[in-house]
Amino acid sequence: MKYHKIPDETVQRLPIYLRCLLSLSEQGRKTIPSHNLADFLGVNHWQIRKDFSYFGSFGTPGTGYNIEKLIKQIRKILKLDVVHKAVLVGVGNLGSAVLTYPGFRIYGFKIVAAFDNDPKKIGRKVGGIMVEDASNLQTLRKRKIDLAIITVPCEAAQETFDALVKVGVTGILSFSPCHKTGHKKPKVITIDIAMDLARLPYYIPTSRVAKV
Amino acid sequence: MKYHKIPDETVQRLPIYLRCLLSLSEQGRKTIPSHNLADFLGVNHWQIRKDFSYFGSFGTPGTGYNIEKLIKQIRKILKLDVVHKAVLVGVGNLGSAVLTYPGFRIYGFKIVAAFDNDPKKIGRKVGGIMVEDASNLQTLRKRKIDLAIITVPCEAAQETFDALVKVGVTGILSFSPCHKTGHKKPKVITIDIAMDLARLPYYIPTSRVAKV
Repeated sequence: MKYHKIPDETVQRLPIYLRCLLSLSEQGRKTIPSHNLADFLGVNHWQIRKDFSYFGSFGTPGTGYNIEKLIKQIRKILKLDVVHKAVLVGVGNLGSAVLTYPGFRIYGFKIVAAFDNDPKKIGRKVGGIMVEDASNLQTLRKRKIDLAIITVPCEAAQETFDALVKVGVTGILSFSPCHKTGHKKPKVITIDIAMDLARLPYYIPTSRVAKV
Repeated sequence: MKYHKIPDETVQRLPIYLRCLLSLSEQGRKTIPSHNLADFLGVNHWQIRKDFSYFGSFGTPGTGYNIEKLIKQIRKILKLDVVHKAVLVGVGNLGSAVLTYPGFRIYGFKIVAAFDNDPKKIGRKVGGIMVEDASNLQTLRKRKIDLAIITVPCEAAQETFDALVKVGVTGILSFSPCHKTGHKKPKVITIDIAMDLARLPYYIPTSRVAKV
């Protein structure tokens, strides 16, 4: 089976399906009909069927999806069936929140190093990780790190991004919208928390919105 | 012009377009051809045209989109042409990062209050906002708050969510995947930072991925 030309939107939904299925598995469930899975996720069941259709057939008429099989398959598709080592750059409030966030484990991620350029932070432990001097970023090539998380302030974002590209990081999760991602590599996913908030008012009843 | 049945994916992209257009406007640009805008954003130009087609015509053949007009229109569509007051619950590392994040202003958001139940945090100022006792959440109905940001730990998420729904909050941005959002109202957007990271390995060359 080949995994070609999967739309980004489908790739975006697979981790959501995975989290839900892991939770159902923990509760002891073995199978789930597609419309029940859709209810849990708050999406249309045809959406789920369409997303899964890119990878072959998972369901059995009458009983629904086999949860364990689906978990295994989604992990394989997303390449989450292996351990991924990640590093974090920028141990401020946001960086500390990421380092202490327990949610990475279920996807097989291991944050193995953290960097900052503040002498007061270097040498301290946050979330069990020793903060290293940001000037040591160059050691990452030897340490065979694929993924990096950028949580530096805006003004340091471009420099950090360029340094990570230079040492061969192939995937970056960035909380800073302040760097250019013109390079063909690495793959960059940018999270701008304000942008997610910016979608909310669209869905709010107009009567509650006060004109300026 | 009516704004009905806009796909969620389009609503999701509009803030991205808006941020890019605001940045171009700051640089003194007046117009931009759709394929240039697409280059800036890293999306296909047909995607942009399709998204804008839901709202009528913005472009002029030859010169492209009028940037100021487009900014005004997107703000109106997303109801960002008014000031939105938001509150935040949970002033830990992540909450503090959100309170001090400068990115909300450009979308017209104002975080007006923050809550926590830790006596050591109550009464302190973070990002210029005084932290109030979480038991005061009930005062929000009188203060006419539409939006709330949840940054509490997992175990406090459901209680916080229910309390916010009770006082009439209509939009919630939640960083916690640990509450049920079964209510028809409010509109909830959940951010799980691990889930965004979980998409990255899919795009990484397989040769770099070490099997366990």
